[in-house]
Amino acid sequence: MSELSERSGVPIASVKFYLRERLLPSGTKTSANQTNYSDAHVDRLRVVRALIEVGGLSVSSARAVLSAVDTEDMPLDWAFGVAQRAASKSIPAAEVPAGASALAEVDRLVDERGWNVTEGNPGRAIAARVIETYRLIGQDVLVDSLPAYADAAVIIAEADLAAVARRPDRASMVETVVVGESLGDTLLAGLRRIAQEHISRSLFPVPPSALVDPTECEDELP
Amino acid sequence: MSELSERSGVPIASVKFYLRERLLPSGTKTSANQTNYSDAHVDRLRVVRALIEVGGLSVSSARAVLSAVDTEDMPLDWAFGVAQRAASKSIPAAEVPAGASALAEVDRLVDERGWNVTEGNPGRAIAARVIETYRLIGQDVLVDSLPAYADAAVIIAEADLAAVARRPDRASMVETVVVGESLGDTLLAGLRRIAQEHISRSLFPVPPSALVDPTECEDELP
Repeated sequence: MSELSERSGVPIASVKFYLRERLLPSGTKTSANQTNYSDAHVDRLRVVRALIEVGGLSVSSARAVLSAVDTEDMPLDWAFGVAQRAASKSIPAAEVPAGASALAEVDRLVDERGWNVTEGNPGRAIAARVIETYRLIGQDVLVDSLPAYADAAVIIAEADLAAVARRPDRASMVETVVVGESLGDTLLAGLRRIAQEHISRSLFPVPPSALVDPTECEDELP
Repeated sequence: MSELSERSGVPIASVKFYLRERLLPSGTKTSANQTNYSDAHVDRLRVVRALIEVGGLSVSSARAVLSAVDTEDMPLDWAFGVAQRAASKSIPAAEVPAGASALAEVDRLVDERGWNVTEGNPGRAIAARVIETYRLIGQDVLVDSLPAYADAAVIIAEADLAAVARRPDRASMVETVVVGESLGDTLLAGLRRIAQEHISRSLFPVPPSALVDPTECEDELP
């Protein structure tokens, strides 16, 4: 087990926890105090860690998506559904159901674009909840960004599916779906912040007094 | 206080908590057991709730961004920095620093696009951490989506800044920055899932056996 920890770069305590939680298959016992773990164990261990520590999935969500990878006869679109919903559980907006009028607003957008989407798609309720909140607090100006957000979502979704299509077999396709679903939101959040700073600088020229890294000053705020 | 709870739709226990945590200014005491709250209190209460319950901000992050709204002489780009970092704290990928080679990969992308971005931009470390993880687990195919993700990020950032620019004064501009930063990631995550289903259906035609809502079946998985 210490070799497994060393080869994967995952601390022993985490390895034990993941084994106990059945996120990692048991190794082959070769003697009373010796268990063999294969390269597949090392790979799986890294994926588990990526899902939980970088993607923010709960243990039970990680277990659900890994079982999708391991279930050989699960159709790909079904695996997509499992991954989408697992990666949606850590989104606070998904906790409270959205109201009918915000859902209708999302459905109108979907219809206008001729998208083919089922009612149970988890993104529908999440988007509706944000729109509902924007309206409630008088930020209709942010709802106006909906078409641009939808354009961006298509670019992202096309890239996501293209990545999946480039994988050689079903198991690795599902693994790409599962990992990309959980970590893709985060990658996009990061790039959004980078692009915002660039565009903000061209729209609102920075006065010399503001040429200071906010990280150094936040704690001094009232 | 019960009137405040009623008018805002926020439960009394939450109102008390937000007052105690100084996320909401105290009302005006008019007698021993009567305090007056204005419309501004109702509005602020709704914003607090949106940030925490929909945007997933911690109490201390919500306090930081609200103090940005209330600090009249804070330059707008500084407020953007505060909002960006507050809305990044709930992202697990931001917890562990990214390695130098992944940061260099992000910087290369920024340079290629001629973006003007400071080293302290929180999105830089977040994007680098995801890229690093993709590489570690052999999902280089997902790193190939980086240009598409960057294109999408620009569309989003332009819409975000345009929304801010349409607000009439500094305080409401900062409020749009703060709310849009925290909830925009979530809106995009929702629309991404919707677009994925649509595009997945055109790329991978669904076999009749899979025409079933995965929500109804997940619990039956092994």
